[in-house]
Amino acid sequence: MAQTYLGYHPGDSDTPWGTYFNPEMAELPRHAVIALEHGPQADQVLLGFDSAGTILDEGYQQTENGYGTLRGGGFQVSIRTDMPGVTPAMWDWWFGWHGSESTRYKLWHPRAHASAHWGDDNGSGYVGRTSIIEEYLGSAYAKAAIQFLEPSALGLDASRLGNDLAVCARLGSSELPVDIGWFVHHVRATPDGAEMRSRFWMGGPYIGVRRGNRLADSVIRPIAARQLPDPRDLLVHCAQEMNHLASFLPALYARFEGP
Amino acid sequence: MAQTYLGYHPGDSDTPWGTYFNPEMAELPRHAVIALEHGPQADQVLLGFDSAGTILDEGYQQTENGYGTLRGGGFQVSIRTDMPGVTPAMWDWWFGWHGSESTRYKLWHPRAHASAHWGDDNGSGYVGRTSIIEEYLGSAYAKAAIQFLEPSALGLDASRLGNDLAVCARLGSSELPVDIGWFVHHVRATPDGAEMRSRFWMGGPYIGVRRGNRLADSVIRPIAARQLPDPRDLLVHCAQEMNHLASFLPALYARFEGP
Repeated sequence: MAQTYLGYHPGDSDTPWGTYFNPEMAELPRHAVIALEHGPQADQVLLGFDSAGTILDEGYQQTENGYGTLRGGGFQVSIRTDMPGVTPAMWDWWFGWHGSESTRYKLWHPRAHASAHWGDDNGSGYVGRTSIIEEYLGSAYAKAAIQFLEPSALGLDASRLGNDLAVCARLGSSELPVDIGWFVHHVRATPDGAEMRSRFWMGGPYIGVRRGNRLADSVIRPIAARQLPDPRDLLVHCAQEMNHLASFLPALYARFEGP
Repeated sequence: MAQTYLGYHPGDSDTPWGTYFNPEMAELPRHAVIALEHGPQADQVLLGFDSAGTILDEGYQQTENGYGTLRGGGFQVSIRTDMPGVTPAMWDWWFGWHGSESTRYKLWHPRAHASAHWGDDNGSGYVGRTSIIEEYLGSAYAKAAIQFLEPSALGLDASRLGNDLAVCARLGSSELPVDIGWFVHHVRATPDGAEMRSRFWMGGPYIGVRRGNRLADSVIRPIAARQLPDPRDLLVHCAQEMNHLASFLPALYARFEGP
């Protein structure tokens, strides 16, 4: 593979979507700043991985924005993105569309996304596929494999989704057969558009050897834990990329998928 | 003891005070956010433990909101809470009233307080008594013994208090005979209510073996230091709980103590 890099080099914008590349990102939403100021939260007010399915319940959970370390190891991060003018269908399209081209992936987080391609050559959509990416989380560079899964893999009852969306994945290394976490982005319609409610569970018991066993897991955990991002960096990254893309996702969708 | 947990379970609100349990906390006061943004301060602008008595002086000190590590070891945290409609007498009542019931203690910080009971069974008030609590500070779970003391124990001249209040305590473990810090909450009347000025001194020379000696202290300090909260988490916790309770303390006081 060619060397990866941040941003667009000359010629990179010579695509139908190149005009949407905007290296200027809006500042962090205030509710994300507040969550950072509050610092780590008690694990009992964070969404447990075993209760991930309850994200589909109406209303809001006790911690919609925040993070904390977990007594059983690892950490959890939650962040909301308000997206006026956006629909859940737009995100469903985006997750399938962006992964084949680094120049598309870079639209999403122009300050942190370096490279993306699919693990398979001829799939469509994203569920059941693996997105091989390179990105910064804070100052740390990650080479990751995002294995998109059916919502049921995280215990979500897809029959409750209606027109809403739940993007679920196992997150791991693209260089080693080791997974380090799980996430779900729940996108639901609101009166003025949509909101995304993101939840990450990383490290500790969420580390596992791909197609491995418990013994392998217990050996790899302390090693893999050194590769984990800082929960604050993950919160900021997610808040930034979702907020940034949401500002032009309706236009992008109309241009490339619209009627 | 029964297993402890955060929040109210079904039936827990079946008390005269249960209606005051509100899991939604206001966001951090802006002056607390600013203090966090400023980060650690020079120890010479922080109130020295040996000068704790000067908190009763008129006006404000150089650092009313802030924290820092100390050159002699440990750290200091200061935070103010503005409390319109509150009187010092209400806090004096609260400190004696809350400690006998976990369901009372949880009113104070619904996202972090898990359990409270008195170390003695039949005392009254709080000075001279020990409150055995379990709470989160940030994501860290603490089992603590708060030994309330006369203000003179921290060098405060009680004759200067008038109708104001100084809640003073030695803070330690409830599982080991080890203390890790001191605090004072100075509550004084203002034109529109009261303000609380909290000061904590934690770690370093403020760690000591209960009824121990200097040799024991020097042995235990490096071990106990690992159990200390992050000063930022302590600042946030104190700012949140005092701010939260102050919003309904006048109503609580009128209901349970008022004429």
